[in-house]
Amino acid sequence: MPEQKKLDDLFLDTLKDMYYAEKHIAKTLPKLAKAAQSAELKAGFEHHLEETENQIERLEQVFDLLGKPARGKTCDAILGLIEEGKSIMDEFKDTPALDAGLVSTAQAVEHYEIARYGTLKTWAQQLGMPEAVRLLDANLREEVATDKKLTQLAEMDANRQAA
Amino acid sequence: MPEQKKLDDLFLDTLKDMYYAEKHIAKTLPKLAKAAQSAELKAGFEHHLEETENQIERLEQVFDLLGKPARGKTCDAILGLIEEGKSIMDEFKDTPALDAGLVSTAQAVEHYEIARYGTLKTWAQQLGMPEAVRLLDANLREEVATDKKLTQLAEMDANRQAA
Repeated sequence: MPEQKKLDDLFLDTLKDMYYAEKHIAKTLPKLAKAAQSAELKAGFEHHLEETENQIERLEQVFDLLGKPARGKTCDAILGLIEEGKSIMDEFKDTPALDAGLVSTAQAVEHYEIARYGTLKTWAQQLGMPEAVRLLDANLREEVATDKKLTQLAEMDANRQAA
Repeated sequence: MPEQKKLDDLFLDTLKDMYYAEKHIAKTLPKLAKAAQSAELKAGFEHHLEETENQIERLEQVFDLLGKPARGKTCDAILGLIEEGKSIMDEFKDTPALDAGLVSTAQAVEHYEIARYGTLKTWAQQLGMPEAVRLLDANLREEVATDKKLTQLAEMDANRQAA
C-alpha cells in the first residue's frame, strides 16, 4: 500500500514545480527582452529578470526551511505557456502586434505564478511555517506588481498603435 | 513576403486558443467533480461546468461578431495545466491532500483564463467591438468569481484538516 501523501508532500511538489518554472522563466526573459519592440517593454522584461533571480533565491530559502535540497520538477503548465509565447514570437515577428502578443504571454505567465504563490502561501500558513509565508508572499507581491505593470504597458502599446 | 499580421489576427488566434481551452475544461470538470472528496468542492465543479458551457456560447457569439467560424486552436498552456492536474489526481488519490490539490489546479486554470479574458477584452476595446467587450467581460467576471469561491473552498478544506 502506498504511503499516505499529505499536505506537506503537496507543498514540496508544488514548490519544486515553481522552482522549475522560475528557472525556465529566467531563461526565457532575455529572449522576450530581445524580441520586444518598445524600449519600455524591453526594460520591463530585463527588470523582471532581476526580480526572478531574487525569487529563485527565496524559493531556495523555503527548500532550506524544509530541510530539502532545492530541486525542480517538470512543470507542464509553464512549458505550455512558454510554447504559446514562442508561437506568438514566430507568427507575429516584425508585425505591429508583436508587443501586444508578448505582453499577453507574460501576463498569462504572471497569472500562473500568482495562482501558485497564492496556493503555496496558504499551505505554508496551514503547515505553520511563518518564514516560508513571508518569502512566498514577497514573491506573490512582485508577481502581482509585474502583472499591473504589464497592463500599463499594454495600454501604452494600444495608444501607440492608435496614434 | 508574408502578409503583415495585426492585432485582429492576434485577437482571433487568442479567441481560438480560449475556445479550445474552454472546451477542454468542460471535458475535465466532470472528472474533477468525480474526484473531489468534499460535497462543496464537487458542487463547485458542477456549477462551474454550467458556467463554462455558457462561456463557450459567448465565445461563439464573439466568433459570429467577427464573421468567422467558431474553431479551436491547440492551447499548449491548458494542456499543460490539465496535465499537472492529472498528476495531482494520480499522486494524491485517496489522501487527505487531494482536495487541496484539486483546488490548486482549478485556481491555476482560473488564473490562466483571467489573464486571457483580460487581454481579449482589452484588444476588443482597441478593435472597437463593444459587444465583444461585453461578452468577454461576462466571462472574465465569472472566472474572477470562481477563483474567489475556490479560495473560500481552500480555507474550508484547511479548517476541516485542522479539526
